[in-house]
Amino acid sequence: MNKNPKVGIIMGSDSDLEVMAETAKILEEFDISYDMTVGSAHRSPKLVHKYITNTKNSGIKVLIAGAGGAAHLAGVIASLTTLPVIGVPIKTKTLEGLDSLLSTVNMPPGVPVATVGINAAKNAGILAIQILATADKNLEEKLITYKKKMSEETKKRGEKLSELGFKKYLEK
Amino acid sequence: MNKNPKVGIIMGSDSDLEVMAETAKILEEFDISYDMTVGSAHRSPKLVHKYITNTKNSGIKVLIAGAGGAAHLAGVIASLTTLPVIGVPIKTKTLEGLDSLLSTVNMPPGVPVATVGINAAKNAGILAIQILATADKNLEEKLITYKKKMSEETKKRGEKLSELGFKKYLEK
Amino acid sequence: MNKNPKVGIIMGSDSDLEVMAETAKILEEFDISYDMTVGSAHRSPKLVHKYITNTKNSGIKVLIAGAGGAAHLAGVIASLTTLPVIGVPIKTKTLEGLDSLLSTVNMPPGVPVATVGINAAKNAGILAIQILATADKNLEEKLITYKKKMSEETKKRGEKLSELGFKKYLEK
Amino acid sequence: MNKNPKVGIIMGSDSDLEVMAETAKILEEFDISYDMTVGSAHRSPKLVHKYITNTKNSGIKVLIAGAGGAAHLAGVIASLTTLPVIGVPIKTKTLEGLDSLLSTVNMPPGVPVATVGINAAKNAGILAIQILATADKNLEEKLITYKKKMSEETKKRGEKLSELGFKKYLEK
Amino acid sequence: MNKNPKVGIIMGSDSDLEVMAETAKILEEFDISYDMTVGSAHRSPKLVHKYITNTKNSGIKVLIAGAGGAAHLAGVIASLTTLPVIGVPIKTKTLEGLDSLLSTVNMPPGVPVATVGINAAKNAGILAIQILATADKNLEEKLITYKKKMSEETKKRGEKLSELGFKKYLEK
Amino acid sequence: MNKNPKVGIIMGSDSDLEVMAETAKILEEFDISYDMTVGSAHRSPKLVHKYITNTKNSGIKVLIAGAGGAAHLAGVIASLTTLPVIGVPIKTKTLEGLDSLLSTVNMPPGVPVATVGINAAKNAGILAIQILATADKNLEEKLITYKKKMSEETKKRGEKLSELGFKKYLEK
Amino acid sequence: MNKNPKVGIIMGSDSDLEVMAETAKILEEFDISYDMTVGSAHRSPKLVHKYITNTKNSGIKVLIAGAGGAAHLAGVIASLTTLPVIGVPIKTKTLEGLDSLLSTVNMPPGVPVATVGINAAKNAGILAIQILATADKNLEEKLITYKKKMSEETKKRGEKLSELGFKKYLEK
Amino acid sequence: MNKNPKVGIIMGSDSDLEVMAETAKILEEFDISYDMTVGSAHRSPKLVHKYITNTKNSGIKVLIAGAGGAAHLAGVIASLTTLPVIGVPIKTKTLEGLDSLLSTVNMPPGVPVATVGINAAKNAGILAIQILATADKNLEEKLITYKKKMSEETKKRGEKLSELGFKKYLEK
Repeated sequence: MNKNPKVGIIMGSDSDLEVMAETAKILEEFDISYDMTVGSAHRSPKLVHKYITNTKNSGIKVLIAGAGGAAHLAGVIASLTTLPVIGVPIKTKTLEGLDSLLSTVNMPPGVPVATVGINAAKNAGILAIQILATADKNLEEKLITYKKKMSEETKKRGEKLSELGFKKYLEK
Repeated sequence: MNKNPKVGIIMGSDSDLEVMAETAKILEEFDISYDMTVGSAHRSPKLVHKYITNTKNSGIKVLIAGAGGAAHLAGVIASLTTLPVIGVPIKTKTLEGLDSLLSTVNMPPGVPVATVGINAAKNAGILAIQILATADKNLEEKLITYKKKMSEETKKRGEKLSELGFKKYLEK
Repeated sequence: MNKNPKVGIIMGSDSDLEVMAETAKILEEFDISYDMTVGSAHRSPKLVHKYITNTKNSGIKVLIAGAGGAAHLAGVIASLTTLPVIGVPIKTKTLEGLDSLLSTVNMPPGVPVATVGINAAKNAGILAIQILATADKNLEEKLITYKKKMSEETKKRGEKLSELGFKKYLEK
Repeated sequence: MNKNPKVGIIMGSDSDLEVMAETAKILEEFDISYDMTVGSAHRSPKLVHKYITNTKNSGIKVLIAGAGGAAHLAGVIASLTTLPVIGVPIKTKTLEGLDSLLSTVNMPPGVPVATVGINAAKNAGILAIQILATADKNLEEKLITYKKKMSEETKKRGEKLSELGFKKYLEK
Repeated sequence: MNKNPKVGIIMGSDSDLEVMAETAKILEEFDISYDMTVGSAHRSPKLVHKYITNTKNSGIKVLIAGAGGAAHLAGVIASLTTLPVIGVPIKTKTLEGLDSLLSTVNMPPGVPVATVGINAAKNAGILAIQILATADKNLEEKLITYKKKMSEETKKRGEKLSELGFKKYLEK
Repeated sequence: MNKNPKVGIIMGSDSDLEVMAETAKILEEFDISYDMTVGSAHRSPKLVHKYITNTKNSGIKVLIAGAGGAAHLAGVIASLTTLPVIGVPIKTKTLEGLDSLLSTVNMPPGVPVATVGINAAKNAGILAIQILATADKNLEEKLITYKKKMSEETKKRGEKLSELGFKKYLEK
Repeated sequence: MNKNPKVGIIMGSDSDLEVMAETAKILEEFDISYDMTVGSAHRSPKLVHKYITNTKNSGIKVLIAGAGGAAHLAGVIASLTTLPVIGVPIKTKTLEGLDSLLSTVNMPPGVPVATVGINAAKNAGILAIQILATADKNLEEKLITYKKKMSEETKKRGEKLSELGFKKYLEK
Repeated sequence: MNKNPKVGIIMGSDSDLEVMAETAKILEEFDISYDMTVGSAHRSPKLVHKYITNTKNSGIKVLIAGAGGAAHLAGVIASLTTLPVIGVPIKTKTLEGLDSLLSTVNMPPGVPVATVGINAAKNAGILAIQILATADKNLEEKLITYKKKMSEETKKRGEKLSELGFKKYLEK
């Protein structure tokens, strides 16, 4: 989709897209080019291998994998690359995503997955931006601005709540 | 190790061997030839792919994979073969093996792993024998004998306990 | 229902049927004859015993049991036969199916249950087919074709997502 | 062992005996005759059926079953009798006994198991005595005395702690 | 409500009544007289103490307590009586009832609570009947009939499923 | 909002307000003045520091913090003040609030958080009142009256249930 | 033990004393007089009632209760008093103290327990001091000093680690 | 300790050092300069703030935080910086580190923590190296070599096991 992607996003199933779209949205907000695809560690293992191999000459610096249940995608990718791999445990219909989280995070020594919270696709995007910003002053500035804005919005909400009282605040 | 193996046993780390040895022992008790190796889904993914590919002409009928933590080995193997894959979740130093169990069992539609209990390497071997026995009357007979023996031993223990009373039974 | 069934499907309650129907569907897709019934380990134990005993001369090669809560059905069946028994932990109204999973999988040494994921009735069917295919080249070919198709569908989805972008993909 | 047993104690494996001995001890303290045996729901299912069938003319009024892991013993017994069945979930080497507890307690409608705490074999015995005491005034008196003694011992410990202070109390 | 109650039912809050009504229904089905009230271990502790004290001359033989969250009601009652106390852990809005279960079942030595499954109010009733039946042949006969009926209904469902196939069975 | 607040209520996000409003309501019922704001430990850390610093001369005696997920707000506040800090773990969309509870309660030695139940914002308010009442006889009297009313209401419900029977009671 | 106690410490069993001694130690460090006793919600309920009733004229301002398993002690006390009640969930031999935590914290509306971490008896003491300090400037000063000292010790450790490097630091 | 550190390592307590030393060791193996200190989010919050502020002109590119229990350190740091923050959940004496994991990973939108497995301090170091390598070809080469060596070692172990058989392998 995008040329010269900096971030590769891959998800285990297109049913994960509604969650993983948040990763794409935040990357677009920061003008980071990305590539996004579907590739299952279990249903299309060779596709995943090929995708990761191609990654080497693509300019991609960070990989983000979203998967649920016995969520192996991030780990499988991490086994095939030396790029940082961010894992998004997707909440499934059973066990509230605890299985996805444990399958993603408890990797063996030598092969880390940078795991974010259950369904925390937006945070996966921000983490990717933070990684890219370690070598990009301009991007770092944008992150500082983003953080300030976030703090100010919280502050405004607090002031509004203080001013209106909870009853009026909730009415809206 | 053995010629013409019927069962392939693979474990994520040699630290799993003390548990997985139980699989080998029960297979030997039933005179089933097997191959046993170490191959990590995360530290040696290509090795695992190669091993599974070689499996096709090896006569192996069932694969058994033991791994702990974010235990992807059985799932990765299942993604690469149409043979039945039995997963043994290995208990690790944290979370009592719950992570290993959930990472092994909750596979996506299309790619099952026949999961046995945490550390239940012996049962993995028996399940492999039961699978082989679906096409081997002789083996089925052996299983029936094994089951009878198991029942008789339980019976003897019950009778001994009934006879001795719990105090004397525990003294031994 | 079907003549000369190869697979016996039994569930603890007819409220499990909506889930367990997936097992039947996938078996039909592979032209595997099966028998399907209700039989509770707790409410009709003698019925279950009788069903399993009859199994011996029925040609059934694999048994699949679906049950929820203190899910004993698969284990009870496994205690009565030397055939491979596949357990499907059914999600219940409490504890997200964790109770069903643990009650099915953590069997004692000597009596394995090949456990699939929570509500993973389709995977139970595929595992049964994989077991049958260990002695049936034709069936193995079908599984290889099935696996390829699965991989291709995933590939197509990935390409479509890459092409359309996530916004258009989600609109449909 | 004992003649005319009032309580039948059955455990899944003789490795459970160290825990289940507590049931026997408390019954002896109350002069309740009991029968104690080993019988596995999984390894000796017919033995268990036979034992429960014999129970009908034995004078046994309450059954106590101790088992661990996918702990089906109490449930299997409850499916075969109308006597009250008390289940003791035995702590196993994995999952801290949570599997044993859930496998014992979450029974389907129609077939209850009176579950006590993990490894709470003594409480299983007391519960059996309470059940017998519903039709035995003498036994009820003994229970009242037992309860008083328990309260007094706690009181004494409290007074001693109050008197000595925690440092001296801990030195002993 | 009923005269000469045999069973006392008490629940922590009237929001538990929809669940606990199942206990009353099954007792009525077996013509067991019962008393049913609300009494919170936390909001009305003295009321509970008084209720249990009155119990002594009421003819009540079994007590059933339903409560959720930090579910102390059954335990508090068990501390005040030598009658058998059955605990029903009520599912609450958080933690799926796991808190209710653990708060009810893991009682200290000397003070058992006969715990049934989460929300299993019907089973609490049946367990109470089983306890009463240990001294009432007529009631035991009713239980045997009940068990047979339950088994036959399961059998009928199995036969119907076998006959109709899952598609037609599900259509209804 | 209120002058001379005695209690400071702070929540991690205004999405927690629907829950945390219960704290404000119960404080108003007891005529306790309070201040209520939004301040995220993660999104506006300096705001939180400033708020807590200002607290010192505000007359605030107790702080209440509500937050969900990796719920650090209460702990962060506790690190900055010697006032008692009450933590309300907010239920989030995943894990049923278990993460919120554990993140709030398991504080290191030296820095306690007085944790109430998941979403138990009303109880946080009552606990704050109980703390204030340790130095305010008038407030203690109000609490005694509140407790009595609570007990009487439970009693009335119990009597009504006893009188009407469960069917009529549920109809309303 | 102590005259005019400000804090009452009560534990379910003297086996909890090794943990609960930490509460006493920190109170002594702050020169807070306390009373300490054993009193089980289950084994000596009337003793507990009496103790709490006596509390009214004793000058006790805060109650601390430590208990494990189905840990009802703190909740039972909270039902009998309007003083703030601090609960210490004691880790038991099963379930890692999760049962103790959930039984203590998830109290119903109206009856809060200020719960600290599992085995966090020291924090229970500090929380009690913080509560007393809301009406005692002198005590507040001591808390501020304590907090500073804690911070300085951490700082020193950090500096030492920075200076020595981890190898030398660990050697000691 | 080291000049011009690229990585800052901070842990909540020096009792975490035995685990966190693994981070330092792997960084040394890759010749990455680092700074290592103790700084508690709860016991020395201002120290942590100061440390992170100083970080801005220190050349540090990645921060690693190890903490246990209600593990807020990584989250608190992430709230104060735009650098990528890696969190290491430390296993504590209760709950097997599940509390540490959930407190570290489930961060709110906007403030990610790159979480690795429980006690996985070595993986935290490797992840930091992977992040630095996104802008350092030389470092990337070292990672590729490291990964190859890891794979070869696994291969050798597998060959040795295949050659010796499990009995001889275990003897050593």
